[in-house]
Amino acid sequence: MSETHSPGTPVGEFGDMDPEVFRTYGHRIIDWIADYLAEVDRYPVLAEVAPGQVRQQLPLQPPDEPESMDSILDDLEKIIVPGLTHWNHPAFFAYFAITGSGPGILGELLCAAFNVNAMLWKTAPAATELEEVVLGWLRQMLGLPPSFQGIIYDTASISSLHAIAAAREMVPGAEVREKGLAGRPEVPRLRLYTSEQAHSSIEKAAITLGVGQEGVRKIPVDEAFRLDPRALERAIEEDRAAGWRPFCIVATVGTTSTTSVDPVPAIADIAERYGLWLHVDAAYAGSAAILPEMRRVLDGCDRADSIVVNPHKWLFTPIDLSAFYCRRFDVLRRAFSLVPEYLRTVEDEQVRNYMDYGVQLGRRFRALKLWMVIRTFGHKGLAARIRQHIRWAGRVAQWIDAHPDFERLAPVPFSTICFRARPHDLPDGGDDVEAYLDELNEALLHAVNRTGRVYLSHTRLRGMFVLRMAIGNLRTTEEHIARAWALLKEHAARLDAERRPAHWRA
Amino acid sequence: MSETHSPGTPVGEFGDMDPEVFRTYGHRIIDWIADYLAEVDRYPVLAEVAPGQVRQQLPLQPPDEPESMDSILDDLEKIIVPGLTHWNHPAFFAYFAITGSGPGILGELLCAAFNVNAMLWKTAPAATELEEVVLGWLRQMLGLPPSFQGIIYDTASISSLHAIAAAREMVPGAEVREKGLAGRPEVPRLRLYTSEQAHSSIEKAAITLGVGQEGVRKIPVDEAFRLDPRALERAIEEDRAAGWRPFCIVATVGTTSTTSVDPVPAIADIAERYGLWLHVDAAYAGSAAILPEMRRVLDGCDRADSIVVNPHKWLFTPIDLSAFYCRRFDVLRRAFSLVPEYLRTVEDEQVRNYMDYGVQLGRRFRALKLWMVIRTFGHKGLAARIRQHIRWAGRVAQWIDAHPDFERLAPVPFSTICFRARPHDLPDGGDDVEAYLDELNEALLHAVNRTGRVYLSHTRLRGMFVLRMAIGNLRTTEEHIARAWALLKEHAARLDAERRPAHWRA
Repeated sequence: MSETHSPGTPVGEFGDMDPEVFRTYGHRIIDWIADYLAEVDRYPVLAEVAPGQVRQQLPLQPPDEPESMDSILDDLEKIIVPGLTHWNHPAFFAYFAITGSGPGILGELLCAAFNVNAMLWKTAPAATELEEVVLGWLRQMLGLPPSFQGIIYDTASISSLHAIAAAREMVPGAEVREKGLAGRPEVPRLRLYTSEQAHSSIEKAAITLGVGQEGVRKIPVDEAFRLDPRALERAIEEDRAAGWRPFCIVATVGTTSTTSVDPVPAIADIAERYGLWLHVDAAYAGSAAILPEMRRVLDGCDRADSIVVNPHKWLFTPIDLSAFYCRRFDVLRRAFSLVPEYLRTVEDEQVRNYMDYGVQLGRRFRALKLWMVIRTFGHKGLAARIRQHIRWAGRVAQWIDAHPDFERLAPVPFSTICFRARPHDLPDGGDDVEAYLDELNEALLHAVNRTGRVYLSHTRLRGMFVLRMAIGNLRTTEEHIARAWALLKEHAARLDAERRPAHWRA
Repeated sequence: MSETHSPGTPVGEFGDMDPEVFRTYGHRIIDWIADYLAEVDRYPVLAEVAPGQVRQQLPLQPPDEPESMDSILDDLEKIIVPGLTHWNHPAFFAYFAITGSGPGILGELLCAAFNVNAMLWKTAPAATELEEVVLGWLRQMLGLPPSFQGIIYDTASISSLHAIAAAREMVPGAEVREKGLAGRPEVPRLRLYTSEQAHSSIEKAAITLGVGQEGVRKIPVDEAFRLDPRALERAIEEDRAAGWRPFCIVATVGTTSTTSVDPVPAIADIAERYGLWLHVDAAYAGSAAILPEMRRVLDGCDRADSIVVNPHKWLFTPIDLSAFYCRRFDVLRRAFSLVPEYLRTVEDEQVRNYMDYGVQLGRRFRALKLWMVIRTFGHKGLAARIRQHIRWAGRVAQWIDAHPDFERLAPVPFSTICFRARPHDLPDGGDDVEAYLDELNEALLHAVNRTGRVYLSHTRLRGMFVLRMAIGNLRTTEEHIARAWALLKEHAARLDAERRPAHWRA
């Protein structure tokens, strides 16, 4: 990325980088990114570095004197890039595969350039109003009613934390905001309900909010990893009888391990019956609802009190952008608004000051990138891309189902497949067979990931070590998927041949 | 920013924006930003739009079909930019003046392009290790000992929330993480101590964590707006006698209204004596400690348990980047680590997985921009810029002190000046004079801000309406400061002449 001849000192005496230097290196970085994104499948997906290897190449003391952008970009190429796991790689199938996309990257560039803090309407009117408008667009694309108002947070962890905080604020007589929870015998222990398959951020939010891990009751799931509403209702009844105060249910549309969809309509019935806040974590799979044929995945969510969908997961927006919708913005405000004198403005009664609705005072202009992404692709274009990912996942599921030495371990409602190698000529079951399969599949995961040509992650389902393949990258093609499948078959066969105990050999 | 002829459809059938289109518009946006930053003082500082004016110009429905980048950039120029308050403007003196800087903007561009989630070492080894290294650099520049380990969060609001959560985790026998705080008569009510001048984020964190507003005891300040340690000790003794459990003190280095510095050494003595967690909020002013002659502002902070410094405030790094240092990383981890199966990696025992130390699972590669900023300017270059801001603030203070119709209302330890117009020939005091001065200064604030040539904010000190002028922008020059002072003098004289009641006229 660098040139042989460095320009002179890159900065003015006391000012910012010279505009012409910014221009020169800005162009060079844009070119580098264009090349990087066009050729990202030349890199190993998973970084091929040992712990400490990047650190060892970096000076441990800060530079006293200015350094040239050439030397910085050289180090970027030589030290940083080889130490990165490439989330842009078309064969990144781990966790949830995400893509930043060109318009999203350019949106972040502009966001950084404007560098506004959208804490108050006055401090960035266009950022506040664009946030309202673009969250209105997304809400319509998702098919949610206008009773939902939106706010952008950084992550789903923070969105769900706000949802549960609002639920806590609704506990009658508790006055949590004013009095807190500690040392108050008149406030019962609080319980929130979510499935065994819920994301760890729900439990983390409960820890943060002083509800505690014991305040989270994990409800069993059915054979398709969906929360069992009868078990939920029994748990609530039991807890009430035992003196707990149920206050919140968190349903998931698209759980992290299997992307299962909890039965939100039945859960909403229960939430209404018991007067509990219903929050829906649709951080990943919510985006699928922009497809007319997938809108049903949000059935019942119109009755939720709040829902989170992360455009930085499956809507081609660079991390971070979490869209939080709430039907009780008044409660959110009651829980969090705190306006010191130095943040009062004459417009306060006429406008929305987003700082009133959250923990964080500092707020980046995140709406800009989502606006650029939605406009560049259009609703139809975004839907077509997600539809393609879902179609490909269906194809992988078919390959697995048709193969005698693999088995699929969960339904595939979106674009994530849970499966494992299971050679057809192994005995039918027993703990030692299961232990062998765990070892085989763990070895398989590491073997395919070590090739650098694919990156998958894993989970455990009913005790079994399970591989996950998540499709969500804009650069993924059928070839990448076929290659991943070929690698899995090849390494599974090899590893099984090498490792299988003699008494199970044919 | 646009050209007359739009290129064809900007996106491939199911992929990302075409690399050549990205290149073309990337260059154009870089050029636009270079021009914008070079000429930002041509814009009105404060947006000249009415509430709703931006929203009215935007379609309320999302586009079905793709739109060209030309039309997006046209709307950016015609609708968004005129609706922004320009935090880059050299005469932005409100709140705390911040600057993103060229290398920081380019760092954000690369961060968006890589789009890694640095939740685990494995998912972005270079991001994790660069975060460790660059926070080590900043720690050394600040003169903090190596016993402090660092993590980057988004905002100081979140950094301080983590500090107070760690403090809460240390309450003996409380087991807050496991059991929460509700319905536990054995846990006493918790109290944290901070000054009347502390930032609102401290109280918000207490609300979030279930400590509650009543759990925050605000300690009086001395004549220079510094927390009074004797009053702090009395409050702790009183609370203990009354059955409260003191658990945390938050001291501030650079309060938001006046940038006063709490006496951290005396507060550290008290924290040690009573076994309380000491957190230091140095979000703004901490950066000044990179000047050798200002290092004393962090005196005593080596004895704190945690400290937050925001490079996105006064270290020329685009929002958001909050550096949190903690001497008890083990406690932070105990409070927040929660590792579901799908996030386990074989490297877990050898590496730092930053997700273990916070609420948020999603973590942007924020270290990159700070690395680029520190290298581009060098420690000396950063120090020279901050030194210049402090010097200019001293000059403004002198102007105010020397002027018969203005008065300064707080010491100026950094680059923020608190003052008001106070015509010399007004009577000496009384409620009606004070009421007039409040009106006069509020009118003065709006008058100078309406010129579009300067943006100041306000606070209240001892009941008085006070203007604040905060210097922190890389593009600010002596001319901008002189112009602001001229505007203040001119409008104060005019407004006083127009508004002063007849019985106070000479």
